[in-house]
Amino acid sequence: MNFNTILGKKDFLEYLRGKKASFVLSCSVTNTAQIEGISQAGIPGKMYLTPTLDAEFLAIKEVRSLDNIATTTKGIPTPALITRAVHELKPFSSLEFLNLGLEVLPKFEHFKIYDFNIIASENIKTGANIDAMDVFQKGVEFGQNYKSSNEYTILAETIPAGTTTAMATALALGYDCKEFFSSSFKTNPKTIKDEVLNTALENIKPHMDIFERLSYVSDNMIVFNAGFILGLQATKHKLILAGGTQMAAVLLTVNSILKTMGGEIDSSKLALCTTKWLFEDENSDIKALLELLDFKINAYSSQFDFLTSKSKVLKLYDKGEAKEGVGAGAALIYASINGVKKEDIVNKVEELLGE
Amino acid sequence: MNFNTILGKKDFLEYLRGKKASFVLSCSVTNTAQIEGISQAGIPGKMYLTPTLDAEFLAIKEVRSLDNIATTTKGIPTPALITRAVHELKPFSSLEFLNLGLEVLPKFEHFKIYDFNIIASENIKTGANIDAMDVFQKGVEFGQNYKSSNEYTILAETIPAGTTTAMATALALGYDCKEFFSSSFKTNPKTIKDEVLNTALENIKPHMDIFERLSYVSDNMIVFNAGFILGLQATKHKLILAGGTQMAAVLLTVNSILKTMGGEIDSSKLALCTTKWLFEDENSDIKALLELLDFKINAYSSQFDFLTSKSKVLKLYDKGEAKEGVGAGAALIYASINGVKKEDIVNKVEELLGE
Repeated sequence: MNFNTILGKKDFLEYLRGKKASFVLSCSVTNTAQIEGISQAGIPGKMYLTPTLDAEFLAIKEVRSLDNIATTTKGIPTPALITRAVHELKPFSSLEFLNLGLEVLPKFEHFKIYDFNIIASENIKTGANIDAMDVFQKGVEFGQNYKSSNEYTILAETIPAGTTTAMATALALGYDCKEFFSSSFKTNPKTIKDEVLNTALENIKPHMDIFERLSYVSDNMIVFNAGFILGLQATKHKLILAGGTQMAAVLLTVNSILKTMGGEIDSSKLALCTTKWLFEDENSDIKALLELLDFKINAYSSQFDFLTSKSKVLKLYDKGEAKEGVGAGAALIYASINGVKKEDIVNKVEELLGE
Repeated sequence: MNFNTILGKKDFLEYLRGKKASFVLSCSVTNTAQIEGISQAGIPGKMYLTPTLDAEFLAIKEVRSLDNIATTTKGIPTPALITRAVHELKPFSSLEFLNLGLEVLPKFEHFKIYDFNIIASENIKTGANIDAMDVFQKGVEFGQNYKSSNEYTILAETIPAGTTTAMATALALGYDCKEFFSSSFKTNPKTIKDEVLNTALENIKPHMDIFERLSYVSDNMIVFNAGFILGLQATKHKLILAGGTQMAAVLLTVNSILKTMGGEIDSSKLALCTTKWLFEDENSDIKALLELLDFKINAYSSQFDFLTSKSKVLKLYDKGEAKEGVGAGAALIYASINGVKKEDIVNKVEELLGE
């Protein structure tokens, strides 16, 4: 099992081969997820629980805040299964959680949950109502003071409807990228999503600065992590952004802030890692999105798939359902640079699924 | 391969998943082991060598103080084989040794052997003659000053006849637990052991305080490690007590000291880990023993067995022989939270055994 280089050189990942990794999961809720049919990542009516359940399952292989693990409406299990499988086969050396506006705290002991006094953001159709400057500053501070005993950190996300807020963010910041975005649906729900986006973007006025725009249409995961990335520039720590188009939106936000404020970034300490499914997705273009950046970025996709699995629900991943989330792509790439066999991951995911 | 939760929540071990561990082996001799038929853990007449040989084999895969590795009278190899196998497959990041009254020092270089000027304790039938307050204080000091580059330490033991002194300790401290104790025999040698216990406990008088009682019937492993646990409370370090009923006796001793002295313990930094064989043993009840404590304790058992092994002597473990020692259970659990496969351990143990 190996990885593909989307952009940049493979040297970054080759350098990290065999090194220990910290894993940090950004957990956030946007009430945009309450819009019927906007997201597949959770239980209808209980989308706000998805990040809580993902955090629980990843940490303790148990969902304590609900009876069953979050599945999509078509019964596709959360990509947290994949990340957990990797964590069992080749454990990350630490698992930590960022509370970027959870409705329900994960029910576990010992694991660190960083709290920033951030509340769930509102539906972007009527305005997310994020204090974007404040959330961004909190991210910067967290990055500046970030301590880890490892050389790199995998930064992942779980936020239902996050692809919608990501797309709204990039569009509100003026990027010409409407066609480059994915959702976790196989058939991008153009009608619902387009309607949400159009309504949300109507709130954006030409005179607004970056942070005002983010306040209306973004989410706390994007705004905080844009700050985190910039704050971390004060250190030598290396960061893997674990995700697809949502992490691309984080980078586009960083890019806009740098352009406005005239700052610079050493992006050689940074990379984006995603799944094969997201990279090969016909309804989005991660490479094109990253090429909108004014700085160079290393980006990679995993080579893992469920081709050899007998599980019908897992094979839906290969058909383009779910695609990415909870750092699945980066976890698979981490597995590949740490000698884990593909078959062992397939077997472990099946075992976790109870198949 | 996974672990079972005996008491508490699995969160403690899940938190430690992927983290590096220090391994510390408490090596001690009680001359109680000289009583014929009292212990199976070594060579008759040379029981005092067992901890020395276990230490050597664990550290260097060689027994330099004797021609052959310590086997029980029925030819069951020491559980040090299991711990060594795990150490080869997923090495502990350090191996250190506590000399808690060895007759013969292990013959190896570089490895740290902490010396506390403690001598082997005597046969409890006539009184162990331990300066219990002094040994306890040495443990406390060691705990208070304990330094490790890791977040947790696995504390194991090797002391032949240790289940007898453990049982005597708990009974002398007034716990109603006679039926909860195991020995390393399959058929608990009730006659010999009962006779030893009865004789030993006759020396305990109602007016005696805890330390006087320990002086008569305990062993240095128990007394020192009770101090170690309490001294370590001054730090944030996490500790896994690697063993079955003997480590339970250490905890019961801690419990009695706390009750008498009015102290408190943060037991969330502490857990006991043992083997499946000990947990499932019909002649002892580790869970019931731990439920005698006035504080809560996390306790876990490994899921490992030799079901798939072709070795007849190893299969004796599955039949309830030997069961635990030299931290075998904790080592197996450490393997399970670090991605080691069961089959790899079976194969490695067979290889070490020369089968």
